[in-house]
Amino acid sequence: METDMNAPLLAGGASDASEPPPRLPEGPVIGIIGSGDFSRSLAIRLVAGGFRVVVGSRDPSRVPRGLFPDRAELRSQREAADSAERVVFAALYPEHYHTLVGLREQLAGKVLVDVSNAAGLNRREQSNAERLAELFPKSRVVKGFNVVSAWALQTGAHDGSRQVLVCSDCSDSKAAVLQLARRLGFSPVDLGGLCASGDIEEAPLLLFPSWGGPMLATFLLFLFFYGYNFLRQVLLPYLDRGQNNFQQLPLVTVNQTLPAVALVTLAAVYLPGLLAAVLQLTRGTKYKRFPDWLDRWLCGRKQLGLLSFLCAALHAVYSMCLTLRRTAGQAAQNAADRQVKAAVGNSLVEQQVWRSDLYLSSGILGFGVLTLLAVTSLPSVGNTLNWREFTFVQSGLGYAALTLSIMHTLFFGWDFAFSPAAYPFYLPPVYLLALVLPCAVLVGRTFLALPCLTSRLTKIRRGWESARHRPPNTQETTEVDPLRACGDI
Amino acid sequence: METDMNAPLLAGGASDASEPPPRLPEGPVIGIIGSGDFSRSLAIRLVAGGFRVVVGSRDPSRVPRGLFPDRAELRSQREAADSAERVVFAALYPEHYHTLVGLREQLAGKVLVDVSNAAGLNRREQSNAERLAELFPKSRVVKGFNVVSAWALQTGAHDGSRQVLVCSDCSDSKAAVLQLARRLGFSPVDLGGLCASGDIEEAPLLLFPSWGGPMLATFLLFLFFYGYNFLRQVLLPYLDRGQNNFQQLPLVTVNQTLPAVALVTLAAVYLPGLLAAVLQLTRGTKYKRFPDWLDRWLCGRKQLGLLSFLCAALHAVYSMCLTLRRTAGQAAQNAADRQVKAAVGNSLVEQQVWRSDLYLSSGILGFGVLTLLAVTSLPSVGNTLNWREFTFVQSGLGYAALTLSIMHTLFFGWDFAFSPAAYPFYLPPVYLLALVLPCAVLVGRTFLALPCLTSRLTKIRRGWESARHRPPNTQETTEVDPLRACGDI
Amino acid sequence: METDMNAPLLAGGASDASEPPPRLPEGPVIGIIGSGDFSRSLAIRLVAGGFRVVVGSRDPSRVPRGLFPDRAELRSQREAADSAERVVFAALYPEHYHTLVGLREQLAGKVLVDVSNAAGLNRREQSNAERLAELFPKSRVVKGFNVVSAWALQTGAHDGSRQVLVCSDCSDSKAAVLQLARRLGFSPVDLGGLCASGDIEEAPLLLFPSWGGPMLATFLLFLFFYGYNFLRQVLLPYLDRGQNNFQQLPLVTVNQTLPAVALVTLAAVYLPGLLAAVLQLTRGTKYKRFPDWLDRWLCGRKQLGLLSFLCAALHAVYSMCLTLRRTAGQAAQNAADRQVKAAVGNSLVEQQVWRSDLYLSSGILGFGVLTLLAVTSLPSVGNTLNWREFTFVQSGLGYAALTLSIMHTLFFGWDFAFSPAAYPFYLPPVYLLALVLPCAVLVGRTFLALPCLTSRLTKIRRGWESARHRPPNTQETTEVDPLRACGDI
Repeated sequence: METDMNAPLLAGGASDASEPPPRLPEGPVIGIIGSGDFSRSLAIRLVAGGFRVVVGSRDPSRVPRGLFPDRAELRSQREAADSAERVVFAALYPEHYHTLVGLREQLAGKVLVDVSNAAGLNRREQSNAERLAELFPKSRVVKGFNVVSAWALQTGAHDGSRQVLVCSDCSDSKAAVLQLARRLGFSPVDLGGLCASGDIEEAPLLLFPSWGGPMLATFLLFLFFYGYNFLRQVLLPYLDRGQNNFQQLPLVTVNQTLPAVALVTLAAVYLPGLLAAVLQLTRGTKYKRFPDWLDRWLCGRKQLGLLSFLCAALHAVYSMCLTLRRTAGQAAQNAADRQVKAAVGNSLVEQQVWRSDLYLSSGILGFGVLTLLAVTSLPSVGNTLNWREFTFVQSGLGYAALTLSIMHTLFFGWDFAFSPAAYPFYLPPVYLLALVLPCAVLVGRTFLALPCLTSRLTKIRRGWESARHRPPNTQETTEVDPLRACGDI
Repeated sequence: METDMNAPLLAGGASDASEPPPRLPEGPVIGIIGSGDFSRSLAIRLVAGGFRVVVGSRDPSRVPRGLFPDRAELRSQREAADSAERVVFAALYPEHYHTLVGLREQLAGKVLVDVSNAAGLNRREQSNAERLAELFPKSRVVKGFNVVSAWALQTGAHDGSRQVLVCSDCSDSKAAVLQLARRLGFSPVDLGGLCASGDIEEAPLLLFPSWGGPMLATFLLFLFFYGYNFLRQVLLPYLDRGQNNFQQLPLVTVNQTLPAVALVTLAAVYLPGLLAAVLQLTRGTKYKRFPDWLDRWLCGRKQLGLLSFLCAALHAVYSMCLTLRRTAGQAAQNAADRQVKAAVGNSLVEQQVWRSDLYLSSGILGFGVLTLLAVTSLPSVGNTLNWREFTFVQSGLGYAALTLSIMHTLFFGWDFAFSPAAYPFYLPPVYLLALVLPCAVLVGRTFLALPCLTSRLTKIRRGWESARHRPPNTQETTEVDPLRACGDI
Repeated sequence: METDMNAPLLAGGASDASEPPPRLPEGPVIGIIGSGDFSRSLAIRLVAGGFRVVVGSRDPSRVPRGLFPDRAELRSQREAADSAERVVFAALYPEHYHTLVGLREQLAGKVLVDVSNAAGLNRREQSNAERLAELFPKSRVVKGFNVVSAWALQTGAHDGSRQVLVCSDCSDSKAAVLQLARRLGFSPVDLGGLCASGDIEEAPLLLFPSWGGPMLATFLLFLFFYGYNFLRQVLLPYLDRGQNNFQQLPLVTVNQTLPAVALVTLAAVYLPGLLAAVLQLTRGTKYKRFPDWLDRWLCGRKQLGLLSFLCAALHAVYSMCLTLRRTAGQAAQNAADRQVKAAVGNSLVEQQVWRSDLYLSSGILGFGVLTLLAVTSLPSVGNTLNWREFTFVQSGLGYAALTLSIMHTLFFGWDFAFSPAAYPFYLPPVYLLALVLPCAVLVGRTFLALPCLTSRLTKIRRGWESARHRPPNTQETTEVDPLRACGDI
């Protein structure tokens, strides 16, 4: 009972109010071998969590005073290993694990926690934790806490840094470390046996793993549209009539490419949801897995949406800077141009005013709605939404942004689209190409909103299955299915 | 003691280091009936929280392997109800509750947790939990966990999704569920008896409940100012002299309306605080409740402020796009205009430069300050502020933004305001209308900053009461009163 | 055992399913003296945390019903002090502490928690907690919970408001309060003896303590560049040839000053990291502390970066508004200007187009990258990054933004820099001055990227020390050192 940290501390001095309260029964003793920054942060956190801590340093006299909290004892490595009741953290670089072999006796039977990271990605060899387990066959090695930064340890676990990935071949020892992580305020995740330690060690080295696919897709789209524009407006005119448009490359062409990319990417956010609905409708059940590519696409929608927002924001800034770039020569040319056009008469001009104002308005509003969407994807904002609010924002506002963007593009095109001059070298302007997918998505969404399809889809999503899937002797499946997992819309 | 999850796990193997540590005593067994997404997420969370879980499916063989965590057992519904020690979750759609009546015996005396949501808003009939309680009179029905999404269950509780609303007619069972929620990392809120279950079931269906009033107010303001502008600049000129200004509607009129709405809304953020102070001063006590409309207004200030920011941001973007819209004809006209005006002489022109630069500067700075305010209303930023910082940002920066916005409007008006040409049809320009409330708020705030009023108000807010309120035989009331509740300024 | 709140609640009714479950063993009784807002919020939180609460009011009959949660009892102050088992909160203004002296008997031997804030900063006298300890020599006074707002108590602890600073001269009592804070979901921080209470009481009054230095530095930079611009472009031309440029002050001069400040501040974010690396390289060890000014500078980098972003954002908005300000006279002048310049010929014009497009593009992209950096400094976004992602964003994207900003400035200068007309009164233009530090930082960074220096630095940061520092008989120091503490890059 002496080490039970959950004894009724607060009820202590009730019986006799004037006597000093009984001595606090302290928590179990945890050992940490190594006295670097991680060791220090871990000690601070363990002490704050009510544990007693013994830090083992190779040379305790060289560790500056005040570096470790008062309630952590600083000893030799041997003493730390000795006095730990059950759990010992190995807070050393893995290349120095071999220096601990002299402590084999002291560490036997104890839980040895490996907190190291991998030195690089995609190494095929043994993981650090596996090597540690080989060096200490009598200890129970558990991998964990490496994804937590020293910073998160010191300041307390925040939302994102709450997860602690844990694995071990000894399930009792793993359970003890899971419990320990929970007591320190983390959310431990059990990843199974020690063979998973390689992945855990590489986790902190991954660079935005969920962004790779969406960024590649967006980049390829950008390349395609930029190349198309380059061909149509710079290269072919130059080859054909020697017209030098190369000065369009840094700004004008970029600003024609960005909105096209933004529009197609935004459509790509909503396309996989439509495909999933169609699959569920045709299959008549939701209990079959989607193909892998669709699963991955569904999980990348948030990233695609943010990349679409980024392109739209750059397009907005570029466009607002357009008037800044009219340098001397061009401005004069334009003025001359204007006077010529002004002679065409007033009716056309009024129409042009409507066109320009409508396309600016729909563009601004579409961008505004997209900004709201981007703001709700901030973790601290999104977390305050309930399920219906989330659906409204992601689906309702999302389709509003898509519709306004399409209108923006259509008003931009206006009557140009039907003039033969818009098709030099038989190539349509880029904004027409960019409209294909978004329009298809809008049409598909409208089609799915037909009452007969909606009601069937709702039934399927609530667990109903068409006859050919239903096993004999069962009623309808009846489980609750919040659609929100993986941000489902 | 066998099921006590708080036994000293970590102190286990201390006595004999080379022996294997004793077997981990596991947590209590929780049952979940239903095997859908919510059931799965709940099981993952419970297992991570140290509980043993038995999931009951109607047909366990049809549930794909690996869907549920390893440490959760998958059985029949009957077995799950049987093996649960005390708490059973009913993770089914409420329309299928009747399929469980065969388990009445197994569920008798146990705590049955209803996690379902309402099918729609404002239904007057029985809540799902009440119906469940009727079906299982021998079980103790507790409502709860429905506001938590499957997503939040799986990934751990975040700030916003931490709350779990709970109610029940059996206070012991409720206490057990409150405790359970706390152990899983949520912040349970006890809402009383089962009669509250209807509200709890509707909570996830509410669509931004705190935004309704502020959005309606802002929308009505927009309609009013837009209508006024339409009348003054489009309709009357057309009726009077056939002038066709209709092309102003999509952009020019909107951009004149938005700043007016932003300004009045920003003033409306600070007006209720002034009214509350005046009420407290005249009443001589802070212990009387404010009228309901004032309470609601006080609680909607953050939303009003964000809507004001939204309008200001749209106004900024619209204004920066103004130069993009000058289509051919107009630009030429303007150029002609300019040359005529340029003849007026240089002194006026210099004054115009000052005017335009000052009104742009004050606008940009006011918008900048408003942006800082908006950023601090992000939950993750606002949470890092202490009380004084919060007051400084909300009150200090807020009034700075209001003052700068008023200056922006005044510089915009400059000498126009005194020219008869600014009053066609005897209607003042919209920016003059929009200035009334903000100026009144600024004057009122200045008045309240008089030392005599400030000191009296501070005394009242610290609990002092004027003689007529004080009961005989009491000293001054002395309780601590942080003004911050409900974001009070 | 009666008061143990951790008894196996959930395992209760397992043995006999049809009997009512046993009565819930409640938590310990906590007393709160005072019935104001803080008392109320604290009571709500304690009840939610599983404690029994007795609130002591001077006049319980005057407290409105429903103000306190149902499970908190409302009694007289004496009764509350009496029934508290061990811990009593003093939720009164410190000026009323003396009214409690009649309760000395009841409070003797108990833990008395002082939750008050200081009345002002830099008071040299006794802290409130010390005065309370003097008034109640037989009680054990603990300072704590004052940094927590009533709001945070009610709604649950969020990221930023999680910390509870605690100090006391009685370590047992302090441990009990630390434990209590932990059970309520806070992260208590032990600051030692009661002499620290003065600092704890002042903590909620500090106004952005970490922002003081960076803001002062940025403001002084602004003053310097603004003054220099004023001298060079307004004052000297006026004195020299009576040229009246004063209308440039509100906007043009500001918009020339802001980018210079933004550029130098951004360089100042990366300079201290370079200095630290150089120090470590020359010292050959990382175990010597940096000088204090460098430590403070390293910890102010985030703030400097955000201020740089603020200046850059204002510069962007000012620039986009430039075309709005061209009032009549000036525009006409410019048009005349243009026609004159247009006569110079076409080749120069094309070069000008390239120049203007490149400087706009690099500016927009640089600002975009800076915006991404600013977004990741939001707590809720930054917390989701792992160590490598954090490094990539802060170091990789940061240097990209710096490089793009330098390019933006160089393209802006282009050939002007070499024309004697750019040096009126022998004063170089402000953008040339602003380039000095950023270019030095870039060169320094490139130099440090040389393989020989990088590998030596990596060794040092992993704990290696050059021979002159190594004590005899030791191998290399081997502790883990995540560089991330204090946001280290």
